[in-house]
Amino acid sequence: MERKSGRRFDELRPIKIINNYLRNSAGSVMVEFGNTKVICAASLDENPVQFLKNTGKGWLTAEYSMLPMSTKKRTARESTRGKQGGRTHEIQRMIGRSLRAVTDLNAFGEKTIYLDCDVVQADGGTRTASVTGAFVALVDLFKRMRGDGIIENIPVKDFLSAVSVGIIDNQIMIDLEYEEDSRAEVDMNFVMTGSGRFIEVQGTAEKTSFSKEQMSQMTELAASGIKKIIERQKEILGELKG
Amino acid sequence: MERKSGRRFDELRPIKIINNYLRNSAGSVMVEFGNTKVICAASLDENPVQFLKNTGKGWLTAEYSMLPMSTKKRTARESTRGKQGGRTHEIQRMIGRSLRAVTDLNAFGEKTIYLDCDVVQADGGTRTASVTGAFVALVDLFKRMRGDGIIENIPVKDFLSAVSVGIIDNQIMIDLEYEEDSRAEVDMNFVMTGSGRFIEVQGTAEKTSFSKEQMSQMTELAASGIKKIIERQKEILGELKG
Amino acid sequence: MERKSGRRFDELRPIKIINNYLRNSAGSVMVEFGNTKVICAASLDENPVQFLKNTGKGWLTAEYSMLPMSTKKRTARESTRGKQGGRTHEIQRMIGRSLRAVTDLNAFGEKTIYLDCDVVQADGGTRTASVTGAFVALVDLFKRMRGDGIIENIPVKDFLSAVSVGIIDNQIMIDLEYEEDSRAEVDMNFVMTGSGRFIEVQGTAEKTSFSKEQMSQMTELAASGIKKIIERQKEILGELKG
Amino acid sequence: MERKSGRRFDELRPIKIINNYLRNSAGSVMVEFGNTKVICAASLDENPVQFLKNTGKGWLTAEYSMLPMSTKKRTARESTRGKQGGRTHEIQRMIGRSLRAVTDLNAFGEKTIYLDCDVVQADGGTRTASVTGAFVALVDLFKRMRGDGIIENIPVKDFLSAVSVGIIDNQIMIDLEYEEDSRAEVDMNFVMTGSGRFIEVQGTAEKTSFSKEQMSQMTELAASGIKKIIERQKEILGELKG
Amino acid sequence: MERKSGRRFDELRPIKIINNYLRNSAGSVMVEFGNTKVICAASLDENPVQFLKNTGKGWLTAEYSMLPMSTKKRTARESTRGKQGGRTHEIQRMIGRSLRAVTDLNAFGEKTIYLDCDVVQADGGTRTASVTGAFVALVDLFKRMRGDGIIENIPVKDFLSAVSVGIIDNQIMIDLEYEEDSRAEVDMNFVMTGSGRFIEVQGTAEKTSFSKEQMSQMTELAASGIKKIIERQKEILGELKG
Amino acid sequence: MERKSGRRFDELRPIKIINNYLRNSAGSVMVEFGNTKVICAASLDENPVQFLKNTGKGWLTAEYSMLPMSTKKRTARESTRGKQGGRTHEIQRMIGRSLRAVTDLNAFGEKTIYLDCDVVQADGGTRTASVTGAFVALVDLFKRMRGDGIIENIPVKDFLSAVSVGIIDNQIMIDLEYEEDSRAEVDMNFVMTGSGRFIEVQGTAEKTSFSKEQMSQMTELAASGIKKIIERQKEILGELKG
Repeated sequence: MERKSGRRFDELRPIKIINNYLRNSAGSVMVEFGNTKVICAASLDENPVQFLKNTGKGWLTAEYSMLPMSTKKRTARESTRGKQGGRTHEIQRMIGRSLRAVTDLNAFGEKTIYLDCDVVQADGGTRTASVTGAFVALVDLFKRMRGDGIIENIPVKDFLSAVSVGIIDNQIMIDLEYEEDSRAEVDMNFVMTGSGRFIEVQGTAEKTSFSKEQMSQMTELAASGIKKIIERQKEILGELKG
Repeated sequence: MERKSGRRFDELRPIKIINNYLRNSAGSVMVEFGNTKVICAASLDENPVQFLKNTGKGWLTAEYSMLPMSTKKRTARESTRGKQGGRTHEIQRMIGRSLRAVTDLNAFGEKTIYLDCDVVQADGGTRTASVTGAFVALVDLFKRMRGDGIIENIPVKDFLSAVSVGIIDNQIMIDLEYEEDSRAEVDMNFVMTGSGRFIEVQGTAEKTSFSKEQMSQMTELAASGIKKIIERQKEILGELKG
Repeated sequence: MERKSGRRFDELRPIKIINNYLRNSAGSVMVEFGNTKVICAASLDENPVQFLKNTGKGWLTAEYSMLPMSTKKRTARESTRGKQGGRTHEIQRMIGRSLRAVTDLNAFGEKTIYLDCDVVQADGGTRTASVTGAFVALVDLFKRMRGDGIIENIPVKDFLSAVSVGIIDNQIMIDLEYEEDSRAEVDMNFVMTGSGRFIEVQGTAEKTSFSKEQMSQMTELAASGIKKIIERQKEILGELKG
Repeated sequence: MERKSGRRFDELRPIKIINNYLRNSAGSVMVEFGNTKVICAASLDENPVQFLKNTGKGWLTAEYSMLPMSTKKRTARESTRGKQGGRTHEIQRMIGRSLRAVTDLNAFGEKTIYLDCDVVQADGGTRTASVTGAFVALVDLFKRMRGDGIIENIPVKDFLSAVSVGIIDNQIMIDLEYEEDSRAEVDMNFVMTGSGRFIEVQGTAEKTSFSKEQMSQMTELAASGIKKIIERQKEILGELKG
Repeated sequence: MERKSGRRFDELRPIKIINNYLRNSAGSVMVEFGNTKVICAASLDENPVQFLKNTGKGWLTAEYSMLPMSTKKRTARESTRGKQGGRTHEIQRMIGRSLRAVTDLNAFGEKTIYLDCDVVQADGGTRTASVTGAFVALVDLFKRMRGDGIIENIPVKDFLSAVSVGIIDNQIMIDLEYEEDSRAEVDMNFVMTGSGRFIEVQGTAEKTSFSKEQMSQMTELAASGIKKIIERQKEILGELKG
Repeated sequence: MERKSGRRFDELRPIKIINNYLRNSAGSVMVEFGNTKVICAASLDENPVQFLKNTGKGWLTAEYSMLPMSTKKRTARESTRGKQGGRTHEIQRMIGRSLRAVTDLNAFGEKTIYLDCDVVQADGGTRTASVTGAFVALVDLFKRMRGDGIIENIPVKDFLSAVSVGIIDNQIMIDLEYEEDSRAEVDMNFVMTGSGRFIEVQGTAEKTSFSKEQMSQMTELAASGIKKIIERQKEILGELKG
C-alpha cells in the first residue's frame, strides 16, 4: 500500500504558518497543513464571561467555522440554519480546552480571549491545524499585550501543537488528508506540549476496534510528528520566556 | 489520600442494570453507577435518515439529556433555551459512534434506531453509564426485532461498555464521582469491547498535562474495570449468539 | 359498556406517590396514576423573575416535558426541534397557575421556585398526575426551607390535586387512560383544593358538545375522585400547619 | 360596587361584527367587543397537514397574534423574539379546537383552513372576541367555497360564540375589560353553540378558589350572554342551512 | 398602454391618513395608498438601546410586519417560522434610517422610540406607505411628549414622505400597485423631505438595466408625487414649529 | 480637506482580483479593494429552489458573512447568535439581485447557483467588493460548466461591478474606507454594467439630506469608477462571448 500523495506513512504534509495575517487582529495566523488552510485569530475582550464575574480570573474560548466552499460539496452556513452543529461544538470545545491547559488564566484579569478558527480550505486535519495555528495567534496576542503593559510575561506554560493519526487497511499513518480520513478505520487526534506530554487524546473507531499495541504505536507516531510541528512554531515565535 | 466514599482507587461504584424498565419501549434500561442514574431506551423508526436513503443501509443515533433536577444546582432545560449545548452534542455523538462501531448497520434495512439516554440523577460518569445502559437496551431491542422476524440474528459484533479514569493529586483512580470529577487534573473516558479492544478513547487535561506512563496506567485500569461491567451485562443479556 | 381495565366508571387507577425520590432535590416525587409515571421536583432559585424585581414578591413556575420513549411511538425531543410545542406550553402554564393559587408568594422573598414535571411513562392524565405530584414536591421543599430557617411556616393555603373526567359513548368516567382519552368525546381536567373548591376547570369537546347536566355530573365525579387523591397526599405529608 | 364603564354586571359591551373586511380574504371580519378589536380572516390552503396525508380528511387551525401597540405598554413582537410565547400557544389552540368542534372536517377534502386572529386593540376578552369573529369568517369562507363548487353545503353544525365571566370582590360579572380582568379573582371563558351546549370551558382562579355554586352562576350568566352574541352573528350570516 | 386602474402614469392612488387610530398609542395612524393599508404606531420606551447607554443620546427604530391575510395568498407568520425574513429586515431598516435622518436624536434623552408598521392589506407600496404614516405617528408622539413636558419643541427637522416609481414596458409610472409591481422591470423607492431633498434612494433592476436618463426622469416623477403626499401630511399635522 | 490615505477624491483604492483561489470551487476569487478582502465562491447545486420546482428555471442566490476578526472590534458570529442580522440580509439580497439581473436564469435548468462572499478583512466597501468578485467567480463557474457540457454559452449578458460614493463635509468622494464611511453624511452604492447602465442604486443619508445636483454628481463619479473596475475584470476573464 502507498499513499496517493506519495508521502511516507510517518511523513507530515508541508506545514506553513504565516503570522500577522490580518490587519485588525494582534494575533492572527494563516496555517496550512498541505491543502488544509485555516485562519486563526486571537482577540481580547475586556468583559469577563458570566460565570467568572468577580473571581479575578480570565477565560479563553474558541470558535470554529468552515467557509461554505472550504469543502468539495458546499456546506450550508450554520448562521443560515440558525444553529451550530454537533461537530462544530465538539471541535471548538476541544480547541478551547487544549489552549486553556497551557495558559495561566489568572495572569490577565477578568477578561476573555477569543480564538477564532475559520477554515478556508478543508482537506483533513482542520482541528489539528486549528490548534497549531491558534497557539501561535495566542502567543502573538500575549506579546502585544505585554507591549501594551497589560501583562508582564507571556502566561503560557509550554508550546502546544496537534496532529492526527489513523489506521487504514491495518496500516498506521500520520496527518491524514480528507480522502484518507474518510476511509480510515481508526481516527485519533493528539494534542501535546513542547515537553512531550499529553493535553488531549481523542480516538474513535467507527469501523473497527483497535488493540493496545496499535494505540501505543499511534501515540509514538503522533509524538514524533508533533515535535516537528512545534519546531516550526519555535522558528516563528522564538522562546516563550522573557 | 483516600476517596471520600471509602472506595479503593481501582474500585467501581455499585453497578445496577435493570432492563424492561419502560412499558413502551422494546429495549429500555435503568442503569446506575452509584448515584448516577440514567434511563436508556432503544426504539426503531421505520424511516431512514436522509443521507442514507436508497443505500439499503440503516443508521443508529443517540440523544442525551439531563432532567433539570438531576444536578445539585438546577440545570436549565435545553428545550427552554431553544437549543442543545456543546456538552450535550459532544456526549451524544460519542454514544452514537460507540454503538455504531459494534453494530452491523446493514442488517436491518433502511431504518433508524434511536438510543435515548435521559439522566435522572447525575453524580459523575453519566456518559459512561449511558454507553453501558444503551448497549443493553439495544440488544433487547434487537431481540424483540428477532422475535418479530425483522432480523434473523442479533447484529452486534461484541459486548460494549465504558468507564472513566482520572488523576487527582497525581493519583490515578477509576469511575469518578462528581465531586472527584470536578477536582480531577486529567479526565479520561474509555469505551471498550468484550474482547478488550478500544472503540473510543477521550482524554482531557484541562489543569495539567500527563505523561505516556500515566496514560498507559490509566488504560490498564480502565480495561480491568470495563471487564467487570461487561460481566454484569452478560448476566442480564446472556450470550449474543443464536 | 365496560372499561378495558375492568375499572368501574367512577374508579381511579392505583395511585402511588413516592417522595424524596431524587438525591439532589429537596422536594422530589415519583407519582404514578396507573402506568402514567411522572417525576416532579421542586427547587429554589435565589434570583427573582425579571418582572418582580424590587417588589419583594416571589414567583413559582412549572416546566413540563416528556421523555422521548414515554410514549408508544417515540416523541421527538423539543430541545432537538429547538422549541417547546403548544401542548407543552399549555400544560406547564396550567400546572404553574394551579400551584400559585394555593401558595403565598409573599412568604419567601424575591426568589423563584421551579417545579419540574418530567413524564417517564405516559398513559393518559400526565397533567393531572403532574399537579398532584408537584404539590407534594412543593410542600417538601417548603419543609426543607423551614428547616433551613428561610421561612417560618409552610406558605400553602390548602391541599391541591387534579383529576381528569371524560365522556365516551355518552358514558361519563374518571381518570382516563391513553386509550380512553383518545376516544373521548369530551375531556375535562379539574384542579381542586382540600376543602373542595375549584382552582382550575378545563373542558374540551373536540368531537361533540356537552350539556349543562353532563357538566354538573362530571364536576361531581371529579370532586369525589380528588378527595381520594388528597387523602393519599395527606398520608405522606401530614397536616400542613405548624 | 359599580363597574367603571357604568355597565350592569350582566351587560355585554357593545358588540360590532363587520364582515368582508379584507379584500384578499374570502372570509374576513373585524370584530369589536367594546374597545377590543380583532381582525379574523379565514383562508383555504390546498395542502393537507402532515399528519392527515392520505386520510381524506381536512384540518382547521388557528393563529393568534397581537400588534405591538394593541396594548398600553408596547408588547415585543414574537417574530423579533424568535418564538411564540405560552399565552399565544394556549389561546390559538383553544380557538382552533373550538371551531373544529362545530365543523365537519370530512366535507372539504385534504385541505387546511387557517383562521388568523390579529388583535389590533386589546381591552380584555381578545380570545372570546377571536372565537366569535373567527366563526363568522369561517362561514363566509365556506359560502365562497360553496359558490366555487368546492363544497355543496356549509359544513358547520351549529353557531358558535364565546364570552368571559369573572369574579371581582366576590361579584360575578360578564365580558371583562382589561382593567377588570387584571383585578379578577376568578376568570372563566366559555365557548357555546347556538343550541346552548358547551364546547370549551376554561376557568382559572389564580388569586382565590371558587365554589360549585359560583361556577353554576357563572355558567348561567355566560349562557345568556352567548345567546345575545349569537343573535348578532345570525343577523350577519343568516341561517346556516341551504 | 394603460394602467388597469385607469390612473395616469403620473397619478398617485387615493391617499388617506387617519391619525389617533389606536387608543393605546400616543401616535397611531392608519395610512392608505389605494388598497394598501398600514397601521403605524409610535411609542416611547424609557430604556436606552444597549449601544447608546451613557451617551445621553436617544434612538429610533422601526419594525415592519404583514398580517398573514394582508396578501392574496396567505403569508406564513414570521413568529411561527421563528425568525424574520430578509425582506422584512430590509424594509424595517429603511424605515428606521429614513425617520432618524429628520429627527434630532439628542432631544429626548436616552430613550428609544419604536415605530411599528403593520400591514393590514397589501397592494404594492407598503414600505412607502409605512414611511409616510410612520412620520405622522412620530410627530403625534412628539406632540404628546411636548404636552407632557418631556420635550420643549418637536425635534423634527422637516416633513418626510416616500413613493415608489417603476418602469413597465419601458413606460415610467408612479405609485405601483401589486399587479404592476410584479411586472415592473425597474423598481425604485424614494424618500424625500418637505424641502425636496433626498433621504433615501433605492433602485433595483432585476429584469433589465436602466439608463441615466431614465433615472433622472424617475427622480423628477417621485419628487412631484412626494410633494403631493406631504401636502396631505401638512393638512393633518399643521406646521412643525412651535 | 484631504483624504488620510492621500488619495484624490475620484481615486479608487488599489484593486486586486485573484481567481482560482480555492481548490474546491470551480469559481473562486479573492478580491481586494485596498485593505478590504473578500473571498467570493460560486458553486452549482443540482437541486432547484422550492418555488421554482417544475418551472424549468434556475436560480442564483448569494450569502454574505464576515469573519469575526475581519473588523477591528471582534464581531460576534451569527451562527453563535442563532440568526443572521438585518445588515447581512440586506447585503446578501442586494448581491443576489444584482447578479441575477445580468444572468439568463433559463440557461442552466432547474439548478441553484450559490455565491458565497466571506469577508476576511473589512475596511469599507465590502458589499461593492463582493459584487465585483462574485461576478468573476460566477463567470469562472459558467466556464467550467461550459467545459463540462452543461451549457453551451456563458449565460451572462454583460459585465457587472459596483462601487461606493459618499459625501463628507460636503465633499463627494469615491470608494470610501471604513474611517471615511463612518463619518459620511451620505453613502451611496452603485451597481452598473459594462455598457454603463444601472442595476442597483442605494443611497442613504442618515445624517443629512442631499440635493438632486449632488445625486447627479455622485452618479457620474460612480460610473467612471465602475468603468475602471470592469477593465480589471476583463483582464482576468477576457470577453464573455464564445
